[in-house]
Amino acid sequence: MGRWEPDAAGRLREAAMALYAERGFDGTTVADIADAAGVTARTFFRHFADKREVLFAGSEQLEQHMVLALAEAPTEATPMEAVAAAVLASAEFFDGMRRDYSRRRAAVITATPELRERELIKMATLTSSLTKGLLDRGVAPDVAALAAETGVAVFRVAFERWLVEPDSVLIADVIRSTLKTLSGLTA
Amino acid sequence: MGRWEPDAAGRLREAAMALYAERGFDGTTVADIADAAGVTARTFFRHFADKREVLFAGSEQLEQHMVLALAEAPTEATPMEAVAAAVLASAEFFDGMRRDYSRRRAAVITATPELRERELIKMATLTSSLTKGLLDRGVAPDVAALAAETGVAVFRVAFERWLVEPDSVLIADVIRSTLKTLSGLTA
Repeated sequence: MGRWEPDAAGRLREAAMALYAERGFDGTTVADIADAAGVTARTFFRHFADKREVLFAGSEQLEQHMVLALAEAPTEATPMEAVAAAVLASAEFFDGMRRDYSRRRAAVITATPELRERELIKMATLTSSLTKGLLDRGVAPDVAALAAETGVAVFRVAFERWLVEPDSVLIADVIRSTLKTLSGLTA
Repeated sequence: MGRWEPDAAGRLREAAMALYAERGFDGTTVADIADAAGVTARTFFRHFADKREVLFAGSEQLEQHMVLALAEAPTEATPMEAVAAAVLASAEFFDGMRRDYSRRRAAVITATPELRERELIKMATLTSSLTKGLLDRGVAPDVAALAAETGVAVFRVAFERWLVEPDSVLIADVIRSTLKTLSGLTA
């Protein structure tokens, strides 16, 4: 990246989000996004593989962050405690600055079948990674798969709820409350 | 359907599965499937919208069956008991005759990204339908979403396990054991 393009990725992301909201994902081209961000299409492709990846580039970081938290959970943590640590770690990722972005992103995804599919795949990948992390901790395969699936279920439900909560509500608190609901459900 | 085509749908399904296993999903055409089943492509399209739907035609029946079981659970059942009833009802769908078919189907789906996506969408649709069923029972939205997600997690894990169990193991028993694992996990 040249020094005449400070935070081109951030500007491209903002431009893409504004255009997706205005014209829809299908009605927006890479050229439109690059134009709106004041860069060339070539610069766009230095940062993102395609117009879909603008919305999913953060997903891998989130997954790595959660998998790391799982690995770093105390040795004596139960499988579900380790998964809960991973889900809670996502709160550090979705700090105050990301809520507005997350809301706009969710609206675009909900409106576009192709993006909904991509989001489902992302969640399935996260589930596999958490399952693998649990296996690495010595958890039995059936328990690992179920704990990972359940953890991702908690994450999805908590995340959806957080998006519609007032700005003062922290995602960490929504996750804790969802984990508590889960215990109550299966008691 | 003419009377010269007894169970054309069943023969098409068998022919498709054999070809998918042999040549891969992408390497098989509707014409190949129709040929192998001894019918015309026109007959194929009377039964299935496309070659993908051959594998997913049963999914809607399964979903309806599970949603009905949820609705018919006793009024006093907790949300998770009602969801457990729905998941257990899937056992009636996967009777002894379907295990071999299910195994071959799972192998084809695992090998084909497009089909894996379709399967994820199917599971997301099932989750939405169970959530709606719980809302209809008067369950609070957050609890309904979490109970439905958790129920589908149990279904997925139990189903995967059942596919690799010896033939004498019933899916209903695997589901019960998975539900028990879940209680232990979140206790």
